[in-house]
Amino acid sequence: MKEKEFLTELEELALLNQTLALLDWDSQTGMPETAAEERGAASGYLSGLAFEKQTSSKIKEALDYFDHHADELSEVGKAAYHVVKKDYDELHAIPKELMVERSRLYSEAHSAWLKARETKNFADFEQALAENIRITKELIPYYKKDEATDYDVLLNMFEPGMTTAVLDAVFAELKEGLVKIRQVIAEKGSQPDISFKDRKMTKNQQKYFVKNLVAELGFDFNRGRLDDTVHPFATRITRNDVRITTRWNEQDFTMGIFGVIHESGHGIYEQSIAEKYNMTPVYDAPSMGIHESQSLFYEIIIGSKRSFWKKQYPVFQAAANGTFDDIDFETFYRSLKATAASLIRIEADSLTYPLHIIIRYELEKALFNDDLAVADLPKAWNDKYEEYLGIRPENDLVGVLQDVHWSGGMFGYFPSYALGYMYAAQLLHSIEKNLAVDTLLEQGDYAPIKAWLTEHIHQFGRSKTPSELIEAATGETLNPQYLLTYLTDLYEDVYQIKG
Amino acid sequence: MKEKEFLTELEELALLNQTLALLDWDSQTGMPETAAEERGAASGYLSGLAFEKQTSSKIKEALDYFDHHADELSEVGKAAYHVVKKDYDELHAIPKELMVERSRLYSEAHSAWLKARETKNFADFEQALAENIRITKELIPYYKKDEATDYDVLLNMFEPGMTTAVLDAVFAELKEGLVKIRQVIAEKGSQPDISFKDRKMTKNQQKYFVKNLVAELGFDFNRGRLDDTVHPFATRITRNDVRITTRWNEQDFTMGIFGVIHESGHGIYEQSIAEKYNMTPVYDAPSMGIHESQSLFYEIIIGSKRSFWKKQYPVFQAAANGTFDDIDFETFYRSLKATAASLIRIEADSLTYPLHIIIRYELEKALFNDDLAVADLPKAWNDKYEEYLGIRPENDLVGVLQDVHWSGGMFGYFPSYALGYMYAAQLLHSIEKNLAVDTLLEQGDYAPIKAWLTEHIHQFGRSKTPSELIEAATGETLNPQYLLTYLTDLYEDVYQIKG
Repeated sequence: MKEKEFLTELEELALLNQTLALLDWDSQTGMPETAAEERGAASGYLSGLAFEKQTSSKIKEALDYFDHHADELSEVGKAAYHVVKKDYDELHAIPKELMVERSRLYSEAHSAWLKARETKNFADFEQALAENIRITKELIPYYKKDEATDYDVLLNMFEPGMTTAVLDAVFAELKEGLVKIRQVIAEKGSQPDISFKDRKMTKNQQKYFVKNLVAELGFDFNRGRLDDTVHPFATRITRNDVRITTRWNEQDFTMGIFGVIHESGHGIYEQSIAEKYNMTPVYDAPSMGIHESQSLFYEIIIGSKRSFWKKQYPVFQAAANGTFDDIDFETFYRSLKATAASLIRIEADSLTYPLHIIIRYELEKALFNDDLAVADLPKAWNDKYEEYLGIRPENDLVGVLQDVHWSGGMFGYFPSYALGYMYAAQLLHSIEKNLAVDTLLEQGDYAPIKAWLTEHIHQFGRSKTPSELIEAATGETLNPQYLLTYLTDLYEDVYQIKG
Repeated sequence: MKEKEFLTELEELALLNQTLALLDWDSQTGMPETAAEERGAASGYLSGLAFEKQTSSKIKEALDYFDHHADELSEVGKAAYHVVKKDYDELHAIPKELMVERSRLYSEAHSAWLKARETKNFADFEQALAENIRITKELIPYYKKDEATDYDVLLNMFEPGMTTAVLDAVFAELKEGLVKIRQVIAEKGSQPDISFKDRKMTKNQQKYFVKNLVAELGFDFNRGRLDDTVHPFATRITRNDVRITTRWNEQDFTMGIFGVIHESGHGIYEQSIAEKYNMTPVYDAPSMGIHESQSLFYEIIIGSKRSFWKKQYPVFQAAANGTFDDIDFETFYRSLKATAASLIRIEADSLTYPLHIIIRYELEKALFNDDLAVADLPKAWNDKYEEYLGIRPENDLVGVLQDVHWSGGMFGYFPSYALGYMYAAQLLHSIEKNLAVDTLLEQGDYAPIKAWLTEHIHQFGRSKTPSELIEAATGETLNPQYLLTYLTDLYEDVYQIKG
């Protein structure tokens, strides 16, 4: 077995994955709905081919060989070997019958979830969710290595190296801090004027503004594109073909504009991994938390900055063709960061969003480690919303039924969103040691910021773990204080606490 | 071997072909150009998988088995067996080394052709074209069965059953008739006013009009879509996902509007093959000539009719938002059918177009049967344009270098365009025996016409040969008189010969 043969196998896998990504992108951006069944068959067939390749005897042979001949591998070959080995072990962990059963249960649970959303009644989902949890609990022993708890095993699958011990501490700190900011705002804050935010800005006006903006931020439209969709996402077809998507609301410009900024953060990452890793499984992010750190860095960290909007607001006003000309900068800027408790995670503002995640984390942990009964989930959910956010869902649709994740067995995934958020703030803190970020933003000089992110995060792909990346880039492990400081300063400014 | 196993293999082949169609569609409708190389690699890899499947031992085993057990096949299974056998034999006809050499030569010839187009000099293409002809001549014996001449073998590959004996007679008749119409027009015709045809009609105005129009004609947008491209085409991703494409010219509405009507003719066909053939190679047209008969039926046969435009012109005027309100129906209608000799085939009008095809047919036949030297091709080309159309190309770019086909070894393909044209007119003649076509067109009642085409052509897919289809639908073999009569009446009307 030569390295070249090994890499050729990986190349063919990359070609299949490229194709699968396109099939999926297309199904979400304009494929006629009537074609869904046949598209599902094509995706299923190609996924099968990709799975066969990932778990083939050729790959096994390569891994066995390079276990003892690591010296014959180039740097790229070595990185690929480690990643392929990890994936191979995970794919082989579970007996085939259990995988088949799992697929069947997920599919049934998804249907049950859709039905329960129609009736707004958790009872219609309860049994299927319980089955998803049961099968997941049965599978955990197959994946388990030295993790402290069952839920740690799940966390690890999405954020390698993450533990409940770390998250318990971090989320406790974060929760306390966020609740405190919200209290201060409630007591002393001056509410921003948001009355003009529903003024009509056409899709074309928004698109013109935000396409130029994200191109300046660093998204390369020569190697990517922007399309409309229902549930926005970013996807890499190839490193030269990275596609972001969005939905628009002409009565709420923030949806499309911040949505595109968010996806372009993912897109810039995918366009910036070192070319040497191309056509290998190293050309990817090491975790969803790290990927999300890049989208949130642009959407929330940069996108919340006064210095950023000082430069961009006049451009925005021009794009809106006079619609906001009577709104001064201060009023506009403050309106962007208005905060209020809300029931739906994906509509939450940047201050309350992490609380939605913490609620899900606590509930998932209880389901897997402390035997919270599935039947008790809606009450536990509603109680936590009341406790942390001061509001109580009036029905399950705007409560425990709102997220798709659990119907697909994605337990342990939610923390990634908050991890990305904290990583992003921690990264900003490090960047600011080297770059005068606010000055750059006021000048619209975004290149040095992107270059820093590429140098410290993007380029490595999966050749480093999340914690290796964060520690090397920031000099310390995950620390929620940077996000808390960022949000405290931001909201004290916007709500004129010290003003 | 059971029929079910056989059909499962064909289904997997259909899934690969679905994917290949999407990869190709995407590369022509918006993929970033920088992604071309990796897309080529993905298409190449999947084409390889499809080829392996088409020529696999499983398929061979099925064919061998059903050679002697045809009684075990259902109607669909039988139709699939015949088509698969034909494809298998063709794919296996040629030794692998020759196939590899052919691919290499085509690729080199395409580069040479592009270069020659830049220099506008046939000499830069001559050697490569000669090589393409040489390899094709070497391959002909492998395909040859009982065809009378070498060129018959080539014709057969694109239009099964077609012969030079038939085409010589048909094209002679057609040429004579067309030349005569052109003479009469030149002597006695009154030229239509075309001065207003370059008035600006926006892309959105054109698109609104023509999308509604082709939906009425029968293209189902719930099972298809329309996109922009550079070189328009129609493609079936699946039978529920048929995609047509077009280019627009705001100073020439005919390009986009007749272009979309043309592609929707292909699209209606692809949407209307009997569902029972889905996921087998029977779900396709039996020849390019038959496919083209459907696009030209809508674009030229229906699209040239006074009765059709009587209904549609007011709709068109409204879509153009007043731009053509000062143009009366008569003036507008006559402008659509103005004719003039031109050098470029794809820009030719509906009267002169077949002459462009006949020129190519005569030259191809001479190259393969009568040893016309490649070096003499430009002169032969120019002489024929002068003889048949009265104009002589000023350089090779607008002469012998204009078409991509020969650079890709597609000899014998051009006649399909003219065959489609003649089939379309012959079909109209048959339809008119059963339906009051002009009355239907005046009423905008297009459904009976589409239903007729589906009943007599579309539904059969590849389960019948082109000649079987045409004879069953029209009661006779290919007859060019229907096209000549159609064009004579049309142009005598438009050019007010008898008026």
